[in-house]
Amino acid sequence: MQFMAATANVYNRNCPSREVVGVIASHWGSLVLGALLDGTLRFGELRRTVNGISEKMLAQTLQALERNGLVHREVHPVIPPHVDYTLTPLGVQVSRQVRGLFDWITGSMPEILTAQQAYDTSRA
Amino acid sequence: MQFMAATANVYNRNCPSREVVGVIASHWGSLVLGALLDGTLRFGELRRTVNGISEKMLAQTLQALERNGLVHREVHPVIPPHVDYTLTPLGVQVSRQVRGLFDWITGSMPEILTAQQAYDTSRA
Repeated sequence: MQFMAATANVYNRNCPSREVVGVIASHWGSLVLGALLDGTLRFGELRRTVNGISEKMLAQTLQALERNGLVHREVHPVIPPHVDYTLTPLGVQVSRQVRGLFDWITGSMPEILTAQQAYDTSRA
Repeated sequence: MQFMAATANVYNRNCPSREVVGVIASHWGSLVLGALLDGTLRFGELRRTVNGISEKMLAQTLQALERNGLVHREVHPVIPPHVDYTLTPLGVQVSRQVRGLFDWITGSMPEILTAQQAYDTSRA
């Protein structure tokens, strides 16, 4: 049976799209997608760019992004071997949306910090 | 010292914006933000809409969204008491972006499922 995109619903826990939300709208998934919009990166470069991610979490995140067709993994059989990660055309589309969200967050930080301070003060 | 939005950088683990990424670009945070774009909901309604979320996780998610100025919590002193959750104007802005991301995901599910099948087959 062909999957009908028109019936996909992220609010249904049994819909396959819900799992994809967990891959893309995740702390590390979003940061890795956003980082790759600037171009191909090696594993170590990604780890430095996505400041604070562990080696294990980066490997898991990249594997999930690759499985969902958003990131292409290329192994170069050189000495020492190295592995490149690049967004697929589908990955570029979603990365643009993620970067838009990041731009909104950084642009809204003054209001968000004001809200945080008001909230914390009201509960102090 | 005033926080300068121009210097915010989600890729710096010490930047306050990184914590906000964790609130918004999270599985449950994004689903709750997206759900509230259709209007005010009570706790129980939200729990039914965001299918699969636990009571504890929903409470934690709403608290984080409220602290960041994205959701307004209104307690109605009636019998039995009830609590309403509504997006703030800032929350409406980010919720629109989140829903755009969900629309992209549901619209791209055919390609994503094809990629998942190819990946799983290549590793079977």
